[in-house]
Amino acid sequence: MNIAFDYGRLLEETLQECKHHTERGHVATYIPELKKADPKMAGVALMTARGLFEAGDTRVQFSLQSISKIFSLLVALEQRGAEAVFAKVGSEPTGDSFNSIVKLETSEQKPLNPMINAGAIAVCSLIPGSSVEERFAHITCLLEQVLGRPIEIDEAVYSSEKETGHRNRALAYFLKDIGGLEGDVEEVLDLYFRQCSILVDCADLARIGMFLATKGISEAGTPLVSANAVRLVSTFMVTCGMYNGSGEFAIQVGIPAKSGVSGGILGAVPGQYGVATFGPALDRKGNSVVGISILKRLSEVLDFSIF
Amino acid sequence: MNIAFDYGRLLEETLQECKHHTERGHVATYIPELKKADPKMAGVALMTARGLFEAGDTRVQFSLQSISKIFSLLVALEQRGAEAVFAKVGSEPTGDSFNSIVKLETSEQKPLNPMINAGAIAVCSLIPGSSVEERFAHITCLLEQVLGRPIEIDEAVYSSEKETGHRNRALAYFLKDIGGLEGDVEEVLDLYFRQCSILVDCADLARIGMFLATKGISEAGTPLVSANAVRLVSTFMVTCGMYNGSGEFAIQVGIPAKSGVSGGILGAVPGQYGVATFGPALDRKGNSVVGISILKRLSEVLDFSIF
Amino acid sequence: MNIAFDYGRLLEETLQECKHHTERGHVATYIPELKKADPKMAGVALMTARGLFEAGDTRVQFSLQSISKIFSLLVALEQRGAEAVFAKVGSEPTGDSFNSIVKLETSEQKPLNPMINAGAIAVCSLIPGSSVEERFAHITCLLEQVLGRPIEIDEAVYSSEKETGHRNRALAYFLKDIGGLEGDVEEVLDLYFRQCSILVDCADLARIGMFLATKGISEAGTPLVSANAVRLVSTFMVTCGMYNGSGEFAIQVGIPAKSGVSGGILGAVPGQYGVATFGPALDRKGNSVVGISILKRLSEVLDFSIF
Amino acid sequence: MNIAFDYGRLLEETLQECKHHTERGHVATYIPELKKADPKMAGVALMTARGLFEAGDTRVQFSLQSISKIFSLLVALEQRGAEAVFAKVGSEPTGDSFNSIVKLETSEQKPLNPMINAGAIAVCSLIPGSSVEERFAHITCLLEQVLGRPIEIDEAVYSSEKETGHRNRALAYFLKDIGGLEGDVEEVLDLYFRQCSILVDCADLARIGMFLATKGISEAGTPLVSANAVRLVSTFMVTCGMYNGSGEFAIQVGIPAKSGVSGGILGAVPGQYGVATFGPALDRKGNSVVGISILKRLSEVLDFSIF
Repeated sequence: MNIAFDYGRLLEETLQECKHHTERGHVATYIPELKKADPKMAGVALMTARGLFEAGDTRVQFSLQSISKIFSLLVALEQRGAEAVFAKVGSEPTGDSFNSIVKLETSEQKPLNPMINAGAIAVCSLIPGSSVEERFAHITCLLEQVLGRPIEIDEAVYSSEKETGHRNRALAYFLKDIGGLEGDVEEVLDLYFRQCSILVDCADLARIGMFLATKGISEAGTPLVSANAVRLVSTFMVTCGMYNGSGEFAIQVGIPAKSGVSGGILGAVPGQYGVATFGPALDRKGNSVVGISILKRLSEVLDFSIF
Repeated sequence: MNIAFDYGRLLEETLQECKHHTERGHVATYIPELKKADPKMAGVALMTARGLFEAGDTRVQFSLQSISKIFSLLVALEQRGAEAVFAKVGSEPTGDSFNSIVKLETSEQKPLNPMINAGAIAVCSLIPGSSVEERFAHITCLLEQVLGRPIEIDEAVYSSEKETGHRNRALAYFLKDIGGLEGDVEEVLDLYFRQCSILVDCADLARIGMFLATKGISEAGTPLVSANAVRLVSTFMVTCGMYNGSGEFAIQVGIPAKSGVSGGILGAVPGQYGVATFGPALDRKGNSVVGISILKRLSEVLDFSIF
Repeated sequence: MNIAFDYGRLLEETLQECKHHTERGHVATYIPELKKADPKMAGVALMTARGLFEAGDTRVQFSLQSISKIFSLLVALEQRGAEAVFAKVGSEPTGDSFNSIVKLETSEQKPLNPMINAGAIAVCSLIPGSSVEERFAHITCLLEQVLGRPIEIDEAVYSSEKETGHRNRALAYFLKDIGGLEGDVEEVLDLYFRQCSILVDCADLARIGMFLATKGISEAGTPLVSANAVRLVSTFMVTCGMYNGSGEFAIQVGIPAKSGVSGGILGAVPGQYGVATFGPALDRKGNSVVGISILKRLSEVLDFSIF
Repeated sequence: MNIAFDYGRLLEETLQECKHHTERGHVATYIPELKKADPKMAGVALMTARGLFEAGDTRVQFSLQSISKIFSLLVALEQRGAEAVFAKVGSEPTGDSFNSIVKLETSEQKPLNPMINAGAIAVCSLIPGSSVEERFAHITCLLEQVLGRPIEIDEAVYSSEKETGHRNRALAYFLKDIGGLEGDVEEVLDLYFRQCSILVDCADLARIGMFLATKGISEAGTPLVSANAVRLVSTFMVTCGMYNGSGEFAIQVGIPAKSGVSGGILGAVPGQYGVATFGPALDRKGNSVVGISILKRLSEVLDFSIF
């Protein structure tokens, strides 16, 4: 890739070409607060060695939702070790949807992987601390180091999820029943709902992508987590990061990525880029339609695929 | 059946023949309090037009557990009508175990029937009242009329279930998520745990069986519920009353019956008998092993089967 | 029921009232030959101690389809004994559809009951004989004794099923794989397809119903099979005879019954009636819509329910 | 990696360290012929730019089994195009075992991916040709170009699978029923059983791995298939190549790989190595235990992971 390559123009053109895909999707409705999002929004950001490039709605704030699973997993791996994590959560992709409860009953009775809701809740239960605040601080602390700014949560989303998150509550109590959740269920759920409510924008996600693409090094050059933890998380992002659309995404885009139902997608092109998209209109698997179409296009042009 | 038939002797002999089956089972462990039961206990009671006959441990008190589902269903049918009940719960047997959550996700998203836990919790949510106490009074009131004595609950079992009933809590929140549970989840669970904790003995169950066998008439001759509600409940007892062992029980015994994990089985031989057994050692489907063997034997001698 | 009761008029009136329900259903399409049926046909027949009453299309011939499962089960029970039968097939109802393969993999690896396709195929494999013809003769022989006339099969339906019965073939090979099918798969399938193709009319079904209602006695008063085999079959008809609509049918009609996808329903009111309906328009569970509505109505008037 | 690195010694040492893992596994039993394999065999081969290195039982011939899925998929992609292939088969990993039939019924009614048996059978049905021989020639022709030698099949394995492959036959007929299989079922199965019976040794597999690692270039430098087809196949190998152990393998080894129940594992380290192991003792997911342990070790030393 020539150093003079015009990333800004590429992003702008790609955004224009893909924008109409927003019409094919629907905003998430299962958390009342998320329904308020504008389905027409679309943005893309690319973090490169030459800095950040962006186009569209990259400075609109939204809640991290499932993308936060990356951070609780990094924290759990660093604080508790891989063995303790894999005692509570498997490493297999699943053909089922992100909030499915079926496999908890029919499989080996632990969540198949840490990227589905059940698995992420189990991971949250492993984060140490004597209070929810203390446990949550592990996550925000890391994220603040990555982004270089203080973290806030969207209080309305947090309250909304806490009040109406019946499915996640069902998953958590089921986990408790099968011995898959440490500690108090409601406290773990509180932690989970908090991390889902962390506010970011698309540009932030591109920075986080770069942090993963460089195996855990901050922009200032400081290693924040071990390279091995990043490798594990990146592997999970490939095999399970896009819910039960992960296989197709691997075929079409081919990079570690994680989506959230608020419309963000974060991607890491190892050693090269952090890339992120935003667009709250989702396909039926819960992934941003405009986001996937943009990433597919960029992958063709910039040769993203690790395969 | 000759009027001089010696029921007492039949019960005594049958008990002696079947007693050894207690060794094949295990007491329920999923509620800590239930583990304390003596697996060797065994009793059988038969309510006939000539009165009550009994043998073995028929005066040991235990909690109703799933047998209580009969009463909440009767109350819901009487107070809310069949249509309202069937809007929240199906009428199909299931090949899955009593506390399975799988079909809630894969089927028509309402519990398959009111005899599995999820269905019974949905039914509880239909019982009217401005407080748990008021709602629970509907159930105890009916039961007190049937038994002619005040009802108490086993406080230790109630607390134990309330604290450790994670699976039932998971089912309830899952129901809430899919619109299958009216009102507050914890209040409905409280009601459900209370009814499960009602104290009875084997002789009581035989009286309740007779109440159903006579289509809802009290011993004093008063109709307590409509014959149609009893017919509906009796049908469910045949198709789903013995969990996922209902089909085999229909083949082997052939009467409306309901079992509970505390070891009771209640049966109704239409127009003839109320029959009940007690024995806390359960098979892996959750039914009393000695109870089933006794009922099988009695069915052969007294020609119970409605088929 | 008064001896002068006008059954003929009741049937005629019920048929007129229920006829419009044919519009709610669709003829079976999975066997090409069945698509040719006229969805508007409707008929009802009632065999009583006073003889046969009928209204509507009761003399139109159609293939037995799943109703034939009754006969292969009777033959297997008589020829091989209950124990041998239950070694290959369970006795539990299932919440799944009649041609489902899921439970074969996830459950105890034998078909849940002999009324679903997998179970009926397993039962067919138990019918003795050195050739398909010899094995099939056991079934036709019994049926000829019940109906007092020679039996023929619909060759077009037989060929059609044999050629296009891919799902049944899948079930049979799956059974073979898990040790659930004796002998040669294609031979067993041949037998199964033959019995499904046996030609009857609605009046025949009412006679068969009476044969079951009298516990296996022919019209001439000869016992053709043991009362116990009839009791077992009748029990299965209640718990599983109407596919995954059996529970609702038990609630609404309350008698042993068996439906087939060609549109017939056969019912037995113990000690009283054989009853049958015909109407090829099916609901999504595979049961005749007009048939169910007629039986529901008759059950109310004639008090069919065994519960 | 220094050019003087002693690959031969590394392989020999790794083999010695890992050999004892053969004791933890069992040879495949579902095809009678496979039972004859010696569970203690173990071998490893590495194809590098400097040539082939090997240790242990690398010249013992065995049948390709599931590893053949790579070749039928390559052929189908080249001959029919990606769109035609993805019309018949999905691209999602599954948490279920390789011969599971459940998802065919409960999911979108096409096999989740081309690496499970159902998917591979669907892919076989897409390979063009007017006879099985002609269709099979597409596969052998490609393989002969890759290996530079004539291909033979193990006739005993072929006959054994053809006769006893009831589960695969069930999958194929189920596919036919849901419109997922083109043409004649038995012919497609014949093709599938032939490709499974192709004879290779561990050294061959390393060569095939190198062919994939170089995006489809033969040892002589000729492109044999398009780089895009290789990219698609490599992606599937990562997400689904090791059955429902693919996620864990991605975590532990991190390369495109494919295993077969005869004990082979083929891996491709993009741009660097072809790597292969042999060891017929399998874990319960169907992967060679000694093979996985060797690859895990080599991955640590040679830094295989693409993540």
